[in-house]
Amino acid sequence: MRVLGIDPGLTRCGVGVVDVEPNRTARLVDVVVLRSPAGLDTPRRLARIADGIEAILDEHRPEAVALERVFARSDVSTIMGTAQISGVAMLIAARRALPVAMHTPSEVKAAITGYGRADKAQVGAMVARILGLDAVPKPADAADALALAICHAWRTGGVAGAAMVEAGSATTADAAAPTPAQRAWLAAERSAAVSGAARRLKE
Amino acid sequence: MRVLGIDPGLTRCGVGVVDVEPNRTARLVDVVVLRSPAGLDTPRRLARIADGIEAILDEHRPEAVALERVFARSDVSTIMGTAQISGVAMLIAARRALPVAMHTPSEVKAAITGYGRADKAQVGAMVARILGLDAVPKPADAADALALAICHAWRTGGVAGAAMVEAGSATTADAAAPTPAQRAWLAAERSAAVSGAARRLKE
Repeated sequence: MRVLGIDPGLTRCGVGVVDVEPNRTARLVDVVVLRSPAGLDTPRRLARIADGIEAILDEHRPEAVALERVFARSDVSTIMGTAQISGVAMLIAARRALPVAMHTPSEVKAAITGYGRADKAQVGAMVARILGLDAVPKPADAADALALAICHAWRTGGVAGAAMVEAGSATTADAAAPTPAQRAWLAAERSAAVSGAARRLKE
Repeated sequence: MRVLGIDPGLTRCGVGVVDVEPNRTARLVDVVVLRSPAGLDTPRRLARIADGIEAILDEHRPEAVALERVFARSDVSTIMGTAQISGVAMLIAARRALPVAMHTPSEVKAAITGYGRADKAQVGAMVARILGLDAVPKPADAADALALAICHAWRTGGVAGAAMVEAGSATTADAAAPTPAQRAWLAAERSAAVSGAARRLKE
């Protein structure tokens, strides 16, 4: 199952594509952080990011799109930009008849690390380990987009038709978390692609 | 100058088109409230509203788009839907190279009624009067969209090229408000189309 994960943002928008097998092993297809200059007006910034998302969809043809579910944060202007990008991403996906799923940050952290309050470094390290990468994808938006895509494939059991997990509860995910995360560790252990950098992370 | 005003919303999205002359007289071209059923998932709801906005743009070819600037409200889920629709509307406008301007609710109220804290009934009554309509457009989203479009044309002096009033301050608009509003009354008085309903509003 090929999933596109989007960590929405107006200044930096992480977009990652992964292939995930039914046995939960995951492979990096592509990852990019789309940017739009703060000097542009918002409509043009949104169009810039939208063009980038469409180019990646055209190139990699994922079966599903996973988006971070945005909650209230302290800074209203940040929420606005994030919600606007989310709206644009959802529109693009809907017009291509792609299923869109929303996952909260704690659902993603729980799925990837086994712990719903993991910090960015822990998520990044696990993403690198799961995908067998030499280094943690930077900036954090890139790792977060990949984590979203992996989380989505794991939570749906790799079935594209089951991709609408829109109402998933963070509490449930936190409680049930260890299983997929532990499986991820096993998958990562088995992966022939585990690199020196990933091995160093274990030490 | 032909302006499309959008009062963004996921459940009801008001869209109004007005023609405004350099002497500030305004004429209704079209007004519609786009709706999306709450039972649909958000991406499809966004696509439904986006299709409606594009159909109106295709039909009426406005020179500028005016959007309500969204601020923090009590209900986070309302902000989200509103911001997502705003993002979608901005993307659509940007891809058609249409200028987009944002006006706050108090800027719109000040421009239309001369008072930045006017209530919905006052805004609706003034919109009907300015446009020479027999009745106040219903629901309020329709009147608000028309008010936005009129406000935009007045604030830019009816010049499409001056349409980027993105950072306009509500305070300034409140202080400077009476002049355009008073002109609006004069324009409405002059209008041959002032109807019985509008006349009743004066009494």
